Amino acid sequence: MKKELLFHPKSIAVIGASRESDKLGYLVLANIKRYGYKGKVFPVNPKADEILGYKCYQTVHHVPENIDMTVILIPAPFVPDIVEQCGIKGIKTVIIITAGFKEIGKEGKEMEDRIAEIAKNHNIRILGPNCLGFIDTYQKINASFAESMPEKYDVAVFSQSGAVCTAILDWANLNGIGFSRFVSLGNKSDINENDLLLEWENDKAARVILGYLEAISNGPEFIKRASKITEKKPLIILKAGITSAGAKAAASHTGSLAGSETAVSAAFKKAGIIRANSLEELFDYAKVFAYQPLIKGNKIAIVANAGGPAVMTTDAVIESKLELAKLSPITTAYLERKLPPIASKKNPIDVVGDAKADRYKVALEATLSDKGVDGVIVILTPQITTEVEETAKIIVTLSRRYNKPVVAAFMGGKRVEAGLKILNDNKIPAFNFPERAVRVLEAMYQYRNYLNERPNYKVAYFDKDKDRVSYLLGQAEAADIYNLGDSMDSLASKILKSYGIPVAKSIMAKTAEEAAEAAAVIGFPVVLKITSQDILHKTDVGGVKIGLNNKVEAKEAFKEIINSVNAKMPDARVEGITVYHMVRKGQEVIVGAKRDPVFGPVIVFGLGGIMVEVLHDVSFRIAPVSLREAEEMIEETKGSKLLKSFRGGEAYDIEAIADTILRLSHLMIDFSEIEEIDINPLRVNERNKGVIALDVKMVLKENKSD
Amino acid sequence: MKKELLFHPKSIAVIGASRESDKLGYLVLANIKRYGYKGKVFPVNPKADEILGYKCYQTVHHVPENIDMTVILIPAPFVPDIVEQCGIKGIKTVIIITAGFKEIGKEGKEMEDRIAEIAKNHNIRILGPNCLGFIDTYQKINASFAESMPEKYDVAVFSQSGAVCTAILDWANLNGIGFSRFVSLGNKSDINENDLLLEWENDKAARVILGYLEAISNGPEFIKRASKITEKKPLIILKAGITSAGAKAAASHTGSLAGSETAVSAAFKKAGIIRANSLEELFDYAKVFAYQPLIKGNKIAIVANAGGPAVMTTDAVIESKLELAKLSPITTAYLERKLPPIASKKNPIDVVGDAKADRYKVALEATLSDKGVDGVIVILTPQITTEVEETAKIIVTLSRRYNKPVVAAFMGGKRVEAGLKILNDNKIPAFNFPERAVRVLEAMYQYRNYLNERPNYKVAYFDKDKDRVSYLLGQAEAADIYNLGDSMDSLASKILKSYGIPVAKSIMAKTAEEAAEAAAVIGFPVVLKITSQDILHKTDVGGVKIGLNNKVEAKEAFKEIINSVNAKMPDARVEGITVYHMVRKGQEVIVGAKRDPVFGPVIVFGLGGIMVEVLHDVSFRIAPVSLREAEEMIEETKGSKLLKSFRGGEAYDIEAIADTILRLSHLMIDFSEIEEIDINPLRVNERNKGVIALDVKMVLKENKSD
Repeated sequence: MKKELLFHPKSIAVIGASRESDKLGYLVLANIKRYGYKGKVFPVNPKADEILGYKCYQTVHHVPENIDMTVILIPAPFVPDIVEQCGIKGIKTVIIITAGFKEIGKEGKEMEDRIAEIAKNHNIRILGPNCLGFIDTYQKINASFAESMPEKYDVAVFSQSGAVCTAILDWANLNGIGFSRFVSLGNKSDINENDLLLEWENDKAARVILGYLEAISNGPEFIKRASKITEKKPLIILKAGITSAGAKAAASHTGSLAGSETAVSAAFKKAGIIRANSLEELFDYAKVFAYQPLIKGNKIAIVANAGGPAVMTTDAVIESKLELAKLSPITTAYLERKLPPIASKKNPIDVVGDAKADRYKVALEATLSDKGVDGVIVILTPQITTEVEETAKIIVTLSRRYNKPVVAAFMGGKRVEAGLKILNDNKIPAFNFPERAVRVLEAMYQYRNYLNERPNYKVAYFDKDKDRVSYLLGQAEAADIYNLGDSMDSLASKILKSYGIPVAKSIMAKTAEEAAEAAAVIGFPVVLKITSQDILHKTDVGGVKIGLNNKVEAKEAFKEIINSVNAKMPDARVEGITVYHMVRKGQEVIVGAKRDPVFGPVIVFGLGGIMVEVLHDVSFRIAPVSLREAEEMIEETKGSKLLKSFRGGEAYDIEAIADTILRLSHLMIDFSEIEEIDINPLRVNERNKGVIALDVKMVLKENKSD
Repeated sequence: MKKELLFHPKSIAVIGASRESDKLGYLVLANIKRYGYKGKVFPVNPKADEILGYKCYQTVHHVPENIDMTVILIPAPFVPDIVEQCGIKGIKTVIIITAGFKEIGKEGKEMEDRIAEIAKNHNIRILGPNCLGFIDTYQKINASFAESMPEKYDVAVFSQSGAVCTAILDWANLNGIGFSRFVSLGNKSDINENDLLLEWENDKAARVILGYLEAISNGPEFIKRASKITEKKPLIILKAGITSAGAKAAASHTGSLAGSETAVSAAFKKAGIIRANSLEELFDYAKVFAYQPLIKGNKIAIVANAGGPAVMTTDAVIESKLELAKLSPITTAYLERKLPPIASKKNPIDVVGDAKADRYKVALEATLSDKGVDGVIVILTPQITTEVEETAKIIVTLSRRYNKPVVAAFMGGKRVEAGLKILNDNKIPAFNFPERAVRVLEAMYQYRNYLNERPNYKVAYFDKDKDRVSYLLGQAEAADIYNLGDSMDSLASKILKSYGIPVAKSIMAKTAEEAAEAAAVIGFPVVLKITSQDILHKTDVGGVKIGLNNKVEAKEAFKEIINSVNAKMPDARVEGITVYHMVRKGQEVIVGAKRDPVFGPVIVFGLGGIMVEVLHDVSFRIAPVSLREAEEMIEETKGSKLLKSFRGGEAYDIEAIADTILRLSHLMIDFSEIEEIDINPLRVNERNKGVIALDVKMVLKENKSD
């Protein structure tokens, strides 16, 4: 069943329509009229008969016809009653432009909640409150107080900030880019980004989607919706508010590394969203994705009329994920024939300072038709004989003939203005500086790469003993223990084992004698570790002793640990000391998971010890993680070089790590009562010899939600 | 004695002056005339009597007066003879605009060399060849073929690329920024950046200096000159060509980590140069340093009329080296009184969407007069009631009253254009996007920080046995050994010891029996390491055995090493196996040095093992290194956390590392025949317990230069 669309009204009522031209209630009505809305318009204002030529009504109930959409502009305290009226009238979409709700504090929040309840009762969808309104160039609706109407173009926009809406519209006017749907989300009391992603998924008018967000409403839904979009078309989002206190907090264990910015970044990666880091990037990416064909690879040709700028552009290309294309012998031969001797015929091509438009034509044609070239950057500096506008026109003409992206940097000020205008008007993304030209092609390449990898992002399923984990979690709950650590004779270990993650054999000892016996059973050398819910970092309190070779040493170590812990953390509740066999070979890594309040489980991977704790060399993904994603997680860390055959050493069992990541991901998905898991360290053996968890910490939700 | 200035001519001859208005020989003469040069002008052209109203001469010898400066525009092959004529005539400064020299290959290079020789004989200074010329707005000279003349302003510019000159001039025209001296360096056959830095050091017209460079002519001189400049005024340089093959090459040992980009970056840091990473940054930095007072600290206030943009700006501030200022209670109280309730009175201050200029005035005045605020960023989005131009004027007026930098981001397009113009015309750096506003203040703060730290950059001197090192190097030369390694019974070790760097005791063994005996002498446990000039990475070929506890183990280890090396590198010349005492405690670091062809010795520091080799977590400085710089080097590495009291562990002797860096720096400065030193590892003991070099590799120049 196709869901009804939210923003396709046959009639609009404006509640709070005004006759005074400086009032929002006038501006919105005027915009609706001015930009040619063809549906029916009903101003509602008990004190007026007619505004802007429209017959005016006392209330919505006085309107003798159906109303599809309402725009509300009356003061906040009156809004709830009016929404109630809208509900009774049977209006389905209500845009509340009025401010003074959640954003002003508790009182406003209560009013907003009341409206949400009323809306729910009447099955009304609300946009806002505290928003700029809604614009649609395809339907010729401007139900906003924006000062202008964008051009018609198949780019859709949503923004959580009204001010950013204003800036985008104003910028678009200057830069000649147009939009189809333009939605100001405001406080998102009901309609949010996920509704729009659903609405626009199959909307041809939304060929490219831009968004500005400060908070994400429903993480898993967002990832799902966004993934569906990005399968078909680019979704470019600027996420502000990335430096929240949470993300800034110093990270001392796996858990806190997965702060909210981390989760956002992992979520964007998972969903294939093109992330803009500034409004400038949002605009630049919008242009290249809206105007140019998607790049097929990362091989770039540069055509410039000067050495210096060619060098700068090359620098930027080499530092990006792009590469300089190697031109084919045919291309080079053609350039040799057509360009003067002094010109450089290798990539970057330098057509030299006295080049007129014809030389650009030669170089651009040659590179665009070279199969080894995926995209071209044209650089122009305004020298004496440079034909700025003619060159721009040639770029426009040639770029239309080939299915490869072309971008330009015309470097300068007044002398290049007209050229830049020709380019932008004709859908060639053009900039003042080469770095931005490089950056937009890099963004395209990254999206292309995502599309190529996407089919590999399939989540596999395993044999797993779900029932046993339920039983074990039940035990923990019964005992009122939420910080499993390696306590309760390693409940956490048992849970891991039930999901196929091998765990090192261990025995907990309560006395020095028990420790010595346990060591003998497990086999020397052994490691002794303090076991306590209250001790997070065992080494810090002298809670770990390694390399113990006989019973005497084990006994002695037990005592030393107890003394040290008693001295450093006298209040810690100690359950005992766990004895492990000491594995000398292999590499230690950390695999962990933490439940993010917005996006759900975030899985983390990193090499053990200082690599995580000092260097924060870790990678993240949102669960469920596919095998390819798990592999990517491992590859992304710098330390992963140590897992490969580094300097002639042995190669480790990377596949077993990936497998562990998948199993952990399943565990987190299957049991929402698990808040956090930290396998630290997971010992990785040589290739084909597997992994083994040497220590695990698990935190459960204190108030079980289901 | 004051050096004569290069670019202050009382008379100029133009050789190759032309009557045809599309010829460079016409354009240059026309520019000299058009922009009002007050000195004497002598066109030289044997075929003309008069050009542009100036009397024309057959040759410079026909000119009846002294000529200070000549501009040459005749074809390249004729240039040498003409320079000879200039020499005979006694002309002191010659600008060769003509192209077709070094840049076209061998033949051109030879011509350029001939000219240089002639110039030297006649004591002539040459600018170019292959340049755009020279412009001076203070002296009203435009001896270039640029299409325009910049405004007069006390910013001086040099550029190695003529095309970049063109782009800068064109940009400056559009953005209303002016220049004093503007020099196109071209091929730098004689006059280079260092001459200009000398010329401009005390030049009041050069209050801010901008430069574009592709290669640096003389590293040590450049650092010296630039340091003198930056003590007094900002020097902003864009260095292109940073991705040379050298810098990109995979780094597998200390030496190759110090590639050329590394050296440039270390040199810029040492000299306090503000580095622009793109032309856009060069321009942005130019504006802020030229227009605004230098920032005193890093506490920033943000004033915005919308939440979203305030969040974006805050993100950018937090991610930079700047911090959000904490407003004083007085400021907050004032804002509470003057701003509406809905406004946010904390930093970032949100004067809210309906703010007119008066609210900006309140907020800006309050923040500028708050002692806890070092600089202010004003953000504006064009909302309905926003007074764009009025707000711009208020920013201008208020910023003049306080000695703190103010920058602005007016976000949008058409509606903010006039406001941006008012700001830029009145010397408030203003941008479309907040990130750039943040970045320019960050650049200012970094320069301020450099000025604060500068007095600490004093190089100390040590007791050192220079004569003994000379003697030891003589021994190496006599034996024709340039790769000292730990060969020749550790010549490298002796050199280190002569400069006060402690080296671990070691004995080289030739047989398994010798190794066992040596181990007994040194004391168990020991380490055995292969000693061979041909083996760079000893572990890779199984050339290292650690933790040997008795004679039998030592013997066995000797054999295993020999077998492994024979199998893996059968051709390696093995001198023996060196036996060291194994130090269990302490932290391993690397201290090294490599002579960069441009800048001289680059000193490198990093934590040992994977921290350097996998993570490239290293820092660099150019020798001579001061104590403060050595400390900074250590602090800059992420791994340095491990040297401090990390997680309750012991703190290491950081002072002894800094001392080692200084001694190594002296050694490299004192002996230019040392190409490379690699102390890897240097073992660092607990605080106050010093360091000890466990292994050292030293490479000497094969052809001793002195």
